[in-house]
Amino acid sequence: MSDVDPRGPDSREYVQSFARGLTVIRAFDADHPRLTLSEVAARAEVTRAAARRFLITLEHLGYVRSGRRRFELTPRVLELGFSYLSALSLPEVVQPHLERLSREVGESVSAAVLDGDDIVYVARVPVRRILSVGIQIGTRFPARDTSMGRVLLAALAERPADPEFAAELDQIADQGWAIVEAGLEPGLRSVAAPVHGRDGRVVAAVNIPTSASLVPLERLRAEHLPALLRTTAAIDAELRHL
Amino acid sequence: MSDVDPRGPDSREYVQSFARGLTVIRAFDADHPRLTLSEVAARAEVTRAAARRFLITLEHLGYVRSGRRRFELTPRVLELGFSYLSALSLPEVVQPHLERLSREVGESVSAAVLDGDDIVYVARVPVRRILSVGIQIGTRFPARDTSMGRVLLAALAERPADPEFAAELDQIADQGWAIVEAGLEPGLRSVAAPVHGRDGRVVAAVNIPTSASLVPLERLRAEHLPALLRTTAAIDAELRHL
Repeated sequence: MSDVDPRGPDSREYVQSFARGLTVIRAFDADHPRLTLSEVAARAEVTRAAARRFLITLEHLGYVRSGRRRFELTPRVLELGFSYLSALSLPEVVQPHLERLSREVGESVSAAVLDGDDIVYVARVPVRRILSVGIQIGTRFPARDTSMGRVLLAALAERPADPEFAAELDQIADQGWAIVEAGLEPGLRSVAAPVHGRDGRVVAAVNIPTSASLVPLERLRAEHLPALLRTTAAIDAELRHL
Repeated sequence: MSDVDPRGPDSREYVQSFARGLTVIRAFDADHPRLTLSEVAARAEVTRAAARRFLITLEHLGYVRSGRRRFELTPRVLELGFSYLSALSLPEVVQPHLERLSREVGESVSAAVLDGDDIVYVARVPVRRILSVGIQIGTRFPARDTSMGRVLLAALAERPADPEFAAELDQIADQGWAIVEAGLEPGLRSVAAPVHGRDGRVVAAVNIPTSASLVPLERLRAEHLPALLRTTAAIDAELRHL
């Protein structure tokens, strides 16, 4: 037995330069929108010479532009991330339904998919900021801490080792929705329900996060939950006819 | 003099394998969400052996998953595109303003930036589909054909060779908004205005596309345009205080 992952960075099949180039793209973010060559090298953990070659390549492809000794990403980079969203085709179907639901309940509404242990936002209609953290498409949170994540975990065949959490997921799977109190932060009360693909499998979740001090639990159940379930049923129906 | 672009694919500085790997990501789209190895190779124009190595690398990095001899992108790919959106920080500021404007005028509202000769959507609040083509974040259109594009082109120092179009851009720059009739398709009437960054430069445009048969030009000028200009002024004010 070898300790080398046959598909990992030590494998002959692994394209190290490709992986490092992707790290160069990810060196840019909200706090680092414009970077010097040295900063890119430091953040991507590559040599200055390598960073320079990756930036030259990205600039040639139209993904990066440079000026005043600094580099920044161009909007063309979106086509990489949106290869995924476009392939998913879910956000386009979901968005008008979220918009309607948001108007009906007067709250922000989002949709997310599961990626490993995280949820990833794929559509969102913000009304006002309840969460102190910024959420946008592509934002990730631990699935376990969120109502959408619990709905998505509940749809999996596996159950976690924690019996209490496993029982909660069973209950969520039975009832078809989840309410989470203070999952991501105190004062947040969120309800989520699943969206089903053509084959009946859960493919995404939709949630309505509310301020616990403004929306009592009884009102969340009596008003927001039925509106949410009408919305996910309408999305399911549309996805079935795609 | 050499014909070799010092930064292009023939340059020693160009990382061919990185560029090809990015093409593998872009092989996936709405019409090709799941691809076999041969299909990836054909669409990315690389050998099967190269496609296999890129897919192994992407799978190791969590950007691709495989099953039943087919490959698909994972939501993690979003983090590549969102490196740009996050670095831009514009969509987060703009979105609540678009939401308010959309409710006020009862129409879809979008924001876009200029990338070469194209506009690229960076934020959007859809109400109903007027355009037969789907629009989502990352969607590109020729700038010249759209009201947002003309607003963005008008803000550039250069003017096109076409004197008639150059004069139109001058007028748009003077008045601070653009109306385009049947730009992207017949029956569409759209109004756009610029958004200014902290340094006063135009960084994006916001538009309201309407159905020409439902919204007469006079109403677009009398109702939609003032609401749009109030919105872009509010966004400008917020961006100044970032």
